[in-house]
Amino acid sequence: MREIWFSEYHSSNLKLSVRIKEELFTTTSEYQSIDIFDSYEYGRILALDGCIILTERDQFIYHEMITHVPMAIHPNVKNVLLIGSGNGGTLGELLRYSSIQSIDLVEIDKTLLEAVKHFFPNTAKSFGDSRVKIHNMDALQFVRHVHKQYDLIIVDATDPYGTSEGLFSKEFYGNCYEALRDDGILINQHESAFSYQYLTEADKPFSNTKGLFPINKLYQVHIPTFPAGQWLFGFVSKKYDPTEDLDEYLLATKMDGIETNYYSADVHRAAFVMPRYTKELFSL
Amino acid sequence: MREIWFSEYHSSNLKLSVRIKEELFTTTSEYQSIDIFDSYEYGRILALDGCIILTERDQFIYHEMITHVPMAIHPNVKNVLLIGSGNGGTLGELLRYSSIQSIDLVEIDKTLLEAVKHFFPNTAKSFGDSRVKIHNMDALQFVRHVHKQYDLIIVDATDPYGTSEGLFSKEFYGNCYEALRDDGILINQHESAFSYQYLTEADKPFSNTKGLFPINKLYQVHIPTFPAGQWLFGFVSKKYDPTEDLDEYLLATKMDGIETNYYSADVHRAAFVMPRYTKELFSL
Repeated sequence: MREIWFSEYHSSNLKLSVRIKEELFTTTSEYQSIDIFDSYEYGRILALDGCIILTERDQFIYHEMITHVPMAIHPNVKNVLLIGSGNGGTLGELLRYSSIQSIDLVEIDKTLLEAVKHFFPNTAKSFGDSRVKIHNMDALQFVRHVHKQYDLIIVDATDPYGTSEGLFSKEFYGNCYEALRDDGILINQHESAFSYQYLTEADKPFSNTKGLFPINKLYQVHIPTFPAGQWLFGFVSKKYDPTEDLDEYLLATKMDGIETNYYSADVHRAAFVMPRYTKELFSL
Repeated sequence: MREIWFSEYHSSNLKLSVRIKEELFTTTSEYQSIDIFDSYEYGRILALDGCIILTERDQFIYHEMITHVPMAIHPNVKNVLLIGSGNGGTLGELLRYSSIQSIDLVEIDKTLLEAVKHFFPNTAKSFGDSRVKIHNMDALQFVRHVHKQYDLIIVDATDPYGTSEGLFSKEFYGNCYEALRDDGILINQHESAFSYQYLTEADKPFSNTKGLFPINKLYQVHIPTFPAGQWLFGFVSKKYDPTEDLDEYLLATKMDGIETNYYSADVHRAAFVMPRYTKELFSL
């Protein structure tokens, strides 16, 4: 039997390997290595700098949970800033809401966008939506001169090393604060609270947003292809609390016609409950 | 650099590999292959038939959640039947409750018990507790002639293939029903709802307990070293509901002095909230 395996090293002592049918694309852009495979277990896989970013089979979990949680809480999201989300998954979820009038997608890597358009045509459809404006530039620069323009900012960045490092800095979060309206919400992907490799960096986005926004909460999601299978998001907000302000009646109206495979109001609330070891890690 | 890796195949197309410091023990007993390693990422690891059963680093999650959930719900657990729990982890958690007067541990594999005593001395301490009686026999036979003797039965078995297959059968669950008092609770480990390999079997314990017990619920736990990182337990009960009957005041008294790293009353409730795809799988 012909066997080709792609392995992601979760640390130098731990790896997850997926048997692939075919290597569809590989390149090194100005910013990162980009690999696209077709696999037996997970369908098509996108890997950046050797890390699995999405798989066709489990991407719904990440993208639903980064999108529907803030959309459920904010009463009327019209303008969204989406940062480093070049695979199109989060964009696709956002576009399901008719209330959204504009989305600025800031993705520095044009090569990634082109590759996604070619190999993930379903998710890439969203790039062509008339409400979307794509900016191929550094998000740090983009947010520097924006003032109270957005209801929601989603930082859908890769890990806090190399290209994405600045997207976890105090300066960046400070500029996001300025860019948000008075009731704005910021969501940031937050690494794992279990994997040794990621532990050292997991606290960074949390401590760097603390004190800046009055509301700063964490929620967790189970993503099979991510290190340790547990992943955190930060819910950082000027006004709304992610559980106290969950109104199921309004939610049903907002999500009328939007079907999900992971998200529900109950899942939303449960995601904000942290195991004791995670609470201790972040002194919650 | 000297590199030795232990790989667990989650399916023929997916594997998790852990770099090991040392292979401490390997044998094939009458029932299964037994491997014990020391690893860099997870400390000591016990693998049965090639599957990771416990690691020193993340075992607390499985053992706390299989134990404290039923202990929190039942008002007064005195007599426990623990099946196929030869690694000692669940036993250790149970023994922290002074209300428990007796535990019958039915583990068919004596070789496993001996290996655990030698290589996991901390967890094996519990084998010597005066409240514990160890029965080296087939649990199917053990439960056949027991009548209303237990407040709690925990089926802490390996996967439903080979040796453990009978522990997921209708006949076995029927005998457990007889063995439980009128307010008894049965907990069974339930496989993953995401991993393809386990999906086909995940429904078995659920459908085989349905109709037999009035209350039949599922809860999920995040275990980094298990396939897909998500694991299910069944909460099957004659009287008590796992969330409605959670009394935080009584819980605090019962758990006075018992510290946990994963479990809390909030985690308990959140664990019973299933993502939509899991609800659909089990028609919940």
